[in-house]
Amino acid sequence: MKVIVNISLKEGVLDPEGQAIDNTLRNLGFNNFNNIRTGKQIILNIDKVNDNEVLKEADKMCQELLVNTVIENYHINIIKDK
Amino acid sequence: MKVIVNISLKEGVLDPEGQAIDNTLRNLGFNNFNNIRTGKQIILNIDKVNDNEVLKEADKMCQELLVNTVIENYHINIIKDK
Repeated sequence: MKVIVNISLKEGVLDPEGQAIDNTLRNLGFNNFNNIRTGKQIILNIDKVNDNEVLKEADKMCQELLVNTVIENYHINIIKDK
Repeated sequence: MKVIVNISLKEGVLDPEGQAIDNTLRNLGFNNFNNIRTGKQIILNIDKVNDNEVLKEADKMCQELLVNTVIENYHINIIKDK
């Protein structure tokens, strides 16, 4: 089953990459935007049939490696095989 | 209007970060997964009312700065304000 993990910085955590993009977009002439934040996406297949098992495995991966839960939030999306 | 840009490496482009995650997860004892890919997410607000205008502006940002279209694909999601 395909799993998409979206990882974003928590509110209030400084996002220097987002700030750099903000500055550069303004230098390029874009003005009608605000509040840029950047995040990561990790996409993988997990070989389990049961939704709950997949979610549990993905959550364990996030807790143990993928996410720094001190400064990051994460959200797991499961996309069922057709 | 909130805009989420998902940027991922094109098929066939080497993904060293994904490879590193793959190795580390296996070292941690995870085995039932494959095909890890990483991507970026850029979230911003664009101050326009019309969906089409927002999409056009976001697409221009992607083409001019956010995406390296030689090696990356991108997908723009627009989330309407309530």
